[in-house]
Amino acid sequence: MTASWTLAARAAKMNSSAIREILKLTDRPGIISMAGGLPSPKTFPISAFDAASQAVLQRDGAAALQYSTTEGYLPLRQAVADMLPWDVDPEQVLIVGGSQQALDLVAKVFMDKGSRILVERPTYLGALQAFAPMEPIPVGVASDDEGMLVEDFAAQAGSGADKARLAYVLPNFQNPTGRTMSEERRQALVEKARELNIPLLEDNPYGDLRFEGDAPLPLAARNPEGVIYMGSFSKVLAPGLRLGFVVAPKAIYGKLVQAKQACDLHTPTFNQRLVAEVMQNNFLDGHIPTIRSLYKAQRDVMLAALEREMTGLDVSWTRPVGGMFLWVRLPQGMDAQQLLPLAVDRGMAFVPGAPFYPTDPEVNSLRLSYVTVSPAQIDQGIAALAEAIRAYPGQ
Amino acid sequence: MTASWTLAARAAKMNSSAIREILKLTDRPGIISMAGGLPSPKTFPISAFDAASQAVLQRDGAAALQYSTTEGYLPLRQAVADMLPWDVDPEQVLIVGGSQQALDLVAKVFMDKGSRILVERPTYLGALQAFAPMEPIPVGVASDDEGMLVEDFAAQAGSGADKARLAYVLPNFQNPTGRTMSEERRQALVEKARELNIPLLEDNPYGDLRFEGDAPLPLAARNPEGVIYMGSFSKVLAPGLRLGFVVAPKAIYGKLVQAKQACDLHTPTFNQRLVAEVMQNNFLDGHIPTIRSLYKAQRDVMLAALEREMTGLDVSWTRPVGGMFLWVRLPQGMDAQQLLPLAVDRGMAFVPGAPFYPTDPEVNSLRLSYVTVSPAQIDQGIAALAEAIRAYPGQ
Repeated sequence: MTASWTLAARAAKMNSSAIREILKLTDRPGIISMAGGLPSPKTFPISAFDAASQAVLQRDGAAALQYSTTEGYLPLRQAVADMLPWDVDPEQVLIVGGSQQALDLVAKVFMDKGSRILVERPTYLGALQAFAPMEPIPVGVASDDEGMLVEDFAAQAGSGADKARLAYVLPNFQNPTGRTMSEERRQALVEKARELNIPLLEDNPYGDLRFEGDAPLPLAARNPEGVIYMGSFSKVLAPGLRLGFVVAPKAIYGKLVQAKQACDLHTPTFNQRLVAEVMQNNFLDGHIPTIRSLYKAQRDVMLAALEREMTGLDVSWTRPVGGMFLWVRLPQGMDAQQLLPLAVDRGMAFVPGAPFYPTDPEVNSLRLSYVTVSPAQIDQGIAALAEAIRAYPGQ
Repeated sequence: MTASWTLAARAAKMNSSAIREILKLTDRPGIISMAGGLPSPKTFPISAFDAASQAVLQRDGAAALQYSTTEGYLPLRQAVADMLPWDVDPEQVLIVGGSQQALDLVAKVFMDKGSRILVERPTYLGALQAFAPMEPIPVGVASDDEGMLVEDFAAQAGSGADKARLAYVLPNFQNPTGRTMSEERRQALVEKARELNIPLLEDNPYGDLRFEGDAPLPLAARNPEGVIYMGSFSKVLAPGLRLGFVVAPKAIYGKLVQAKQACDLHTPTFNQRLVAEVMQNNFLDGHIPTIRSLYKAQRDVMLAALEREMTGLDVSWTRPVGGMFLWVRLPQGMDAQQLLPLAVDRGMAFVPGAPFYPTDPEVNSLRLSYVTVSPAQIDQGIAALAEAIRAYPGQ
């Protein structure tokens, strides 16, 4: 009987994440996985959470376990406003269930069936997934090592009823490529978006994990009325609490709150109070550098291993200045999806690049994470990847 | 600039909950509020959560703070399956961010724009809100003190492209009316739904809070392949953790998981492990009776106060055998929305009944909660309500 029920048209477009499916195949004992997108559990401040949990429950237990407002716990909204590098009113901060939820809410508020939306090429797969139930048409904007090309952004913007509803960008250490938008590109994109009146959706889950150089200002800081900004506690504290935030222009904020209220009433009160408690006394100022130095050391090992092992192969890669990922370009004609079983046979796993493209995937690309593997595993895994590339038919 | 952005058509239909707006008006010092839908914080097992949190973080901190599977923490899914009174496979249990989220996921999977869906008259306002972004057409089924009338369910079922996608029902101590479906009505509804091949969405957040009599079997127990069942930890443990669950037929389960993955990846790992830890050693078997006895005593006081204070008024009310709410019918011609300021002036607040109707509201109805008010406040509040009714123009 169940099988004959009529489902929504969108249900046919829902799919399990290609990455999660790949992880099921590669998550085997003995495989060195550079495929995952998980932060290193070594970075979770477990004892700080334990102390904070006791403090919150013993001091404010009844309030911490009760329903609360959709907008979020005010001291946490204030803490978010305080940590951002432009003038943010806590009344513009909405606490969400991980920044993934922000993507769902923005899709609900901005996207009709068939709406054009602009994304980087490649882009974060989870965003494509979050948008899909609203049935928009994601259009890839040609992108280089600094992100979206502004000329192509303008060329793809559409007009009239087909004008892009928004453009989704990840300016810092992008997932999947690890690339970062330069100062010039940011400014040019913000100005073009303002000129064309296209909202920018700025996703910045990795921004605090910068290894070197100064951070260019966020897009939102350059035009707060033109940008919806998303951040997360998943990479600087712990993803298992599912806590993120949105900073939205006031005209849009209320709609996002209504969408959130309809879908889950509010983000867990306890989790919000827990993180607000942990963040007291500038905890993050001491904690974030420990994450950066761990990830930076592992990035350095991976870059050195690639340099050493890929000698003589027509392979290139990005040199991320922060974050968790780097992006490898294989020789033209090689398909990373076909390469994967050869790599797994040799003891390592990666994520093929194709699922990160909205259309016309560049199949000779793949993503590597350096954060949950030890230096010794990185050396061994990159050597295995090079072996797999050499074993690819036709090489 | 923001104000000129093009939003999704659905955004115009999103509204803040009428109840939340009313609560803002009535949440004033000195007002005895029977308007809220909050459980009593006296029932939250704070010290059990404190002990569980320490145990989870000290034993499994890294896993409790890491990303996890969309389906949920297996020991919790197993605990849910074990506590339900029919044969449930944990593989059919999906852990969600409060049962409100289940409504959002079901709407995404089942409802296109214009899809007919059947609801009780009146029904849970939050469900109407959760469904609204998918733009279905909620059709009220005539209902009596035992819930939906099966004849009207069949009459409203529609056919062909307009056939109802599902019917949403709250069989136990319904929000807002407090009514409970009888054994006979349950069986008749399940059989008719099976005959017409209409999925039932059974919402049971209050089922454990039964004060008297035996619990009739859930609808899902009568036809597991024909019913999607929703439950919650909000009323038996704490709402501030935002933890609920869905039990779905296997053919639908995968689609709900995909919808959940797209919208927030998974329910917080830490919260799931915390509740699984608290539930060990049959904790709920000892805890739930304490909630029942608190709420039952307060229901008794409210029923007695109504009996005493409404003498001589053409007012009737339900006699719930569990849950948190009762429903008052005012004299014909009286509008509860107009009555509210008179009641607030006299020091008490309720929720007018109109927002709980999908269409054609019965405006002479209102909802009272007896769970967060003391016996003395109940006596005083019901006396104030009777005074307000007597002061209503034309009485």
